[in-house]
Order: sequence, then C-alpha cells, then structure tokens
Amino acid sequence: MKMEHPTPMQWQFSQRAQQLQSSVIREILKVTVRPEVISFAGGLPSPATFPVERMQAAFDKVLSQQGKVALQYGPTDGYGPLREWIAQSLSTADAKILPEQVLMVSGSQQGLDLLAKVLVDEGSKVLVETPSYLGALQAFSVYRPEFVSVPGDEHGLLPDQVAAIGQGARMLYSLPNFQNPTGRTLPLERRLALVEACARLGLPLIEDDPYGALSYRGEPLPRMLNMNPQGVIYMGSFSKVLTPGIRLGYVVAPVPLIRKLEQAKQAADLHTAQLTQMVVHEVIKDGFLDQHIPTIRKLYSDQCQAMLDALEEFFPAGVTWTKPAGGMFLWLTLPKHIDSMKLLDEAIADLVAFVPGAPFYANEAEHNTLRLSFVTVPPEKIREGVAKLGKLIASKL
Amino acid sequence: MKMEHPTPMQWQFSQRAQQLQSSVIREILKVTVRPEVISFAGGLPSPATFPVERMQAAFDKVLSQQGKVALQYGPTDGYGPLREWIAQSLSTADAKILPEQVLMVSGSQQGLDLLAKVLVDEGSKVLVETPSYLGALQAFSVYRPEFVSVPGDEHGLLPDQVAAIGQGARMLYSLPNFQNPTGRTLPLERRLALVEACARLGLPLIEDDPYGALSYRGEPLPRMLNMNPQGVIYMGSFSKVLTPGIRLGYVVAPVPLIRKLEQAKQAADLHTAQLTQMVVHEVIKDGFLDQHIPTIRKLYSDQCQAMLDALEEFFPAGVTWTKPAGGMFLWLTLPKHIDSMKLLDEAIADLVAFVPGAPFYANEAEHNTLRLSFVTVPPEKIREGVAKLGKLIASKL
Repeated sequence: MKMEHPTPMQWQFSQRAQQLQSSVIREILKVTVRPEVISFAGGLPSPATFPVERMQAAFDKVLSQQGKVALQYGPTDGYGPLREWIAQSLSTADAKILPEQVLMVSGSQQGLDLLAKVLVDEGSKVLVETPSYLGALQAFSVYRPEFVSVPGDEHGLLPDQVAAIGQGARMLYSLPNFQNPTGRTLPLERRLALVEACARLGLPLIEDDPYGALSYRGEPLPRMLNMNPQGVIYMGSFSKVLTPGIRLGYVVAPVPLIRKLEQAKQAADLHTAQLTQMVVHEVIKDGFLDQHIPTIRKLYSDQCQAMLDALEEFFPAGVTWTKPAGGMFLWLTLPKHIDSMKLLDEAIADLVAFVPGAPFYANEAEHNTLRLSFVTVPPEKIREGVAKLGKLIASKL
Repeated sequence: MKMEHPTPMQWQFSQRAQQLQSSVIREILKVTVRPEVISFAGGLPSPATFPVERMQAAFDKVLSQQGKVALQYGPTDGYGPLREWIAQSLSTADAKILPEQVLMVSGSQQGLDLLAKVLVDEGSKVLVETPSYLGALQAFSVYRPEFVSVPGDEHGLLPDQVAAIGQGARMLYSLPNFQNPTGRTLPLERRLALVEACARLGLPLIEDDPYGALSYRGEPLPRMLNMNPQGVIYMGSFSKVLTPGIRLGYVVAPVPLIRKLEQAKQAADLHTAQLTQMVVHEVIKDGFLDQHIPTIRKLYSDQCQAMLDALEEFFPAGVTWTKPAGGMFLWLTLPKHIDSMKLLDEAIADLVAFVPGAPFYANEAEHNTLRLSFVTVPPEKIREGVAKLGKLIASKL
C-alpha cells in the first residue's frame, strides 16, 4: 500500500511558527539532569512538597463516587465548585469576585497563550517588565507583538513610566510577587499607582501570581485584582502549592473578556480535564492548603537563606543579588564585562548550573545577569554549588 | 484599597478573536441536557463504555509507585513509553513509525489548533471536506485561512478535484473513517488517490482518525499515514476508546514538523499532564483495548442498527440518510425546502433534538441536512425519538 518514491516534503511554516524556538531553559535542563550537576537552573518546585497520598485518596474518591462524570467531556469554563472556591478565596470585603469571572485553564501557560490570542494583533504593543518571565515572552511572541519594556529597579517596574509608553498598548504583563526571574516584589504604593495608570489608559493589566502563596514573611501584599476588578486580569495556578504535573491554573477577569477567552479555549482544547479539577477541589475544599502551604514556605525559606548565606560567604565584591521575600528564585548581577551565557559553559564543566539572564529581556538584554533557583537543592549542596560559582566568577575579575 | 470609580474598560479584541464564537453544538447541548429531551445532538461517547474501575486501579498504581514523577513537570513531547506504544501500534511492515514522530497533545482538538498555528498564515488556503468536522473549522478559523471545500459524494471527498484547487494550499484536512458529521468512509482507492494527489502538490494531508477503532465490520481500511509517512499527518485520540474527559490525543508526523509543533505546544501549555499519560499507558500496555473496543463496537453498532430500522419505519419518502460502517453519527438529507435550523426549534418543543447541518460547511451550506448521534440513547428511546422526528418532517411535505 505504500507509495513508492514520494516527492520529499518541503514544510512551509507559518510566519508565527518561523520565529518559534525551544525555551533556552528547557535546553539547559536537558544538560543539567545529570545527577552529578548541582543545578540552580530548574524552575521546578521541589517534589518533596507534593502531597502524593492525599492526591491519591482524592483520585480514588472521585473515581469511586463520580467516575462516569469525571471521565466524560466537561464544560469549557471549568468545574463549577472549583470555580466557586477560587472566586471566594480571591474575594475581599469591597471587591467580590464571582465564579463566572473564573476560567479554568491547563496550567497558567495556557492562560498566557489565550490572553495573547484574544488581545494581541500582529504589531500590537505589549508592555512587559525588565526582565520578564520567559514563558510569557514565548507565549506572546507567537502572536508577533511589539514588546515594550517598562523600566524598573530592584523593587520592580516603575508605574510612572507607564503613561508615557502605554498609549494604545493591548496589555501590560506583570508578576508582582517574588517575580520569576528576579525574586523581587512590587511594593504596595507601586501596585496602587500601576492600577491607576493602567485604568487611566484603558490598558488591561495582567497580574500573574503563581508564587504569591509562597511568602516567607506572612501574608503577601494585596492583589491588584482587588484594587480594580474591572481592569485587572489575574492568573493563578496550583503548580506551586500542590503539584505542577496536573496542569491546572485559572484566569480571573471581567465577564466580557472571560467569555471571549472561553471561546478561544474551546477552539484550542475544548476544556481542561474534569477529573483533575474534581480531584483538586476534593483535596483543597476543607482547608488543606492552610496547613500545607506553610510547610512549603518553611522548606523554600530555609534553602533561600542557605543560598543568601553562601553568596555572602563565597562571592566576590562587585556581584550583587536580590533578597527575595518569597518564591523560588534570586537574581544576580555580575560585573558588566562578564557574559553569563559564556560563563555557563565553564560552570557546567565545573558541575554547577544556572540560567543566564539574557533570554528574560524582551528588548535590550543585560548579559551580566543570571537566575538561581534554590528550591530543589538541599542546603549543603547549595553551599557547595555557590562556592564553585563564586570561585569561577572571582577568576574573571 | 479599591479604586473609586475606575474608567469602565472598553475591551479591544484581536482580529482573530472578533470572529470567534461558541460552537453551535455546545449551545444546543445546553438546551438538550434536560432529561425529558431525547437528544441525538450529542457528540459525546456513551459513559457506559468508560472503564472506570480499571482507570482507578491505574491511578492508584502509578501514584503509589511513581507519584513524585507523575506529578512533576514533564517533557513537552510526552511520556516516552506511551509514545513508543503508539508508534508501534501504527507501524506496518513497510511503513514503520518511530516514537520521535509522536507528539502527545491535550486531546485531538489541541492537535488541530497547533497544526493551524504552525502551518497557516492569514489568508492561507486550507482544503476541507464538504461537510467537515465543526471542531476543526473552529480551530482553523482562529488563524483566518481561506477555506476551500473539496467536492464530495456519499463516499467522501473526490481526490481528482484536489489537483485543480490545491495548488499553494497549506494543508488538506480529512476524516476518512466514519466521518463526523456524515458517518461516511473514504474507500481504499480514494485514499490512495488522495495521498498521491497531495504528495504531487507537496500538500500536507491531515488524517484525523478519532473513530477508526469503532468499526462495526472488522478492521477499518488502511491508514493513509502508512501509504506516505513523509506527507501524512495522523491524529489519534483516547477519547472514543477509553474516556474523553482525560483529554489525551496525539499527532504523528515527520520529525521536522513534530519539532515545530512541539515548540508551539511548549508556548501553548508546556506539556500534557504526565500522570494522565502514565495512567493511560498502564491501562493499555498489556492489550486491554483488544478486549475493550469490541464491547464499544457492539453497543454502538446495535444502536446504529436500531436507528436505521426506525428511520426506515418512520421516515417519509424524500429523506435520505447515510448507513455508517462505524463511528457515532449518521447524516440526513431532507427535501430542499426544509431548513433544519428552523426545524430544530419545533423538534425541541417536541422533546427531541439533533444538530443542524449548516455549521459543518466551510463555504456554502446545505441547510436541509442534519446530524444524528445514536451512541448515548438506548434503542427504545431511539425508536421513540425517530418516530417523533419522522412525524414532524412528514408534516412539512
């Protein structure tokens, strides 16, 4: 039945596909899975935090009691009781969030894709932080926007710059709590100013918040969502507080936008697995996260401190770093003449890895920056790895 | 903290989003979930076929033995052993399929979205059947192609028409086995001719095959994939042979295209849940589908026959219908003057539902057509519903 000698295929990709490339991080991770490498390159949460037995019990219960429903096609907007739970958890006294403002997605990454799909035309202006989350830049790039980087400092973006550059933009993407990649937190007064600036411009403000619950010092700062529920698009995820492999996140937005996102999601993958949503609801509905999240905070906070101590001990003058109040990452700035991409090759030869900073910039990259994750490496290995890196960097001075 | 009197938001959607709309079928389904309605409108498989206990045992086993891996982020291309299983199941003596040609996706719908994303520019010519699967038209529409309908007859599309209209097209989308919506099957000689015609044009040929296993008369016809593995893109799914709610499908294509699709998937949702893939592999790896699929075939085949018998008994002359050799649907053609969209309102008032045919046409619709599903309605209800419909149609003649 097979054709003999068919003409070899010349694949013609779409313009958007031609600029797609694999994430630098995913490429680096392939190298650093070797067990002998001390890797600060990962963006993965620690599997030590996964409540495996509790998830298993919930799968058992949901499949025993509602198996046929859980395994059938489900609604595009998501599982009702979970959307209600999310709406309630995000409501404040003066800013109530309704379940119909919640769209369940297959991980936050899908939320980023859908938002760009419905809000961005080719050449549309999209405002991002300097630096910004790489996965967001990747997701948005597919729709070929013009990225505009909002200037910032060690506390995050500068809201007073937004009015000047935000005119006519389609959205502003921010990650205010323990940002990936820098670990920095946007202060309260900047949140208020940013919400105001965007509202004045009629500019949709995306508040991506995967790490908000992982605060090392009590509750995180107020959400921008609750400052202006009519103008802020909030994104949450179960990846960092339960497990990432189930691929479950959510977008919260005003209803007209949610309906449009729902249509886009229907065309993209019909809906997110009903079973997963029912299981997560079963796991969290009676307050499990209130006991579970503090154990994650403790683990990450201790490892963060171990890294900060090691940096202090082993790193030469001329290198600076952020001191995160939560999350999974910190950010290093090396002397200007050191290119972290080149440094990585030597580091890997030395069996220690990190992520170079350049790919996190939408426009002009600062090549002397890099990201370290402290969440999957135990304290003694953190010390060992940081000592190696410090020695390597000192040799360049 | 809440802003007082923010400016009301004027949402500006992208051009692609402006033409997005909710599926007609999903809208109809909302009406027809009322238990008193006999609904032939669904596209859902029968939950009676879901192997719930077996799935439950597999979730238990995978979570007990490999919980931390199953719940962590996973590779974008999918779970290796499952990709191997799929590659092997699709290989023939003279056309071996390799695991690296397989990309796991979150249901076939995502495969459709990714294919259009990487192959279609605005205005690109895309060839589809007459009529075609609505979910594919929806997924492709987002990328604003120019649809060209390939003429067909009761046996499916006419391959000798492709050379004339396919020049410069980016892809041809076909569903050769027990097509949704018509139930028709593309004969072997047309498959060979279609594969040849597309190869000559250098035109990627998509073979969407969600129903292939649901043949009522032995094995289905040979796959076009195996006739030209270098030019055919094959799409498969676990939705109709296991359960749809887990959202698991796959795309099989030459490696250069798979790598590009993988990059697009990474930007769209990182990867499909590792846990789901490991569970499905656990369920099927020892030949379960060989025992399970015949039970689905038997159920659907009996109900299909019940519907064909009832149509014969209750339908007036002047109405014709397809006689499917498998799958979930059959297709009715009414006298020209009857618009099935208008008929639906009266049918629902009469407590019986179907899907009007018009939305399945990419170009000029035939408004006197409609789709019936027989898989979720028991035989006595099929008889009752078809009798009502027959009476209603007879009243229009």
